[in-house]
Amino acid sequence: MSDPTKVFALSKIFHERVRLGIMTVLVSRPEGVEFNELRKVLKLTKGNLSVHVSKLEEAGYVEITKDFVGKTPRTTYFATSLGERDFSAYLSVLEDIIAQARDTA
Amino acid sequence: MSDPTKVFALSKIFHERVRLGIMTVLVSRPEGVEFNELRKVLKLTKGNLSVHVSKLEEAGYVEITKDFVGKTPRTTYFATSLGERDFSAYLSVLEDIIAQARDTA
Repeated sequence: MSDPTKVFALSKIFHERVRLGIMTVLVSRPEGVEFNELRKVLKLTKGNLSVHVSKLEEAGYVEITKDFVGKTPRTTYFATSLGERDFSAYLSVLEDIIAQARDTA
Repeated sequence: MSDPTKVFALSKIFHERVRLGIMTVLVSRPEGVEFNELRKVLKLTKGNLSVHVSKLEEAGYVEITKDFVGKTPRTTYFATSLGERDFSAYLSVLEDIIAQARDTA
């Protein structure tokens, strides 16, 4: 066990299951993902998705664009550069913790 | 992205930073860890450690023994076999999610 306090380096923003799922999808889709698609892929209610996306948006990790396809409004989400960078750093911390936990079994 | 709903397979018990830290220490110490040592290693307050250990105990993942060293009471924590097994499964789910997220960057 090198340093168990490493867990406190885990971003509280990303270390939540729904937001982890949202970011995992968004970083794979630089062209952005439409609200309803994201909701279906993650099997979330509208309210639940909205709440967690807002948290990611407030942190500067997700950008939201709104436009129309014909008369139908469309909302699309993108991971920002900051979001990609900090999410990658979060994954690295997780990897360190897993290595510690596996090493000591 | 194979399956982003995999995030919902993450145990809510372990997917919390303090409890993740506690389990990471306990699985490395089959002889058990005394309350004050665990508290110092993780830099936690007594109350915070107690709350999270209780949650792990309720789930059957941690066992607590109490005895005396001379006249001083001693409380020691151990990971149970179930705790070791389910924690290892949790780490495997995390590894899958990281692989998905890394693969798609």
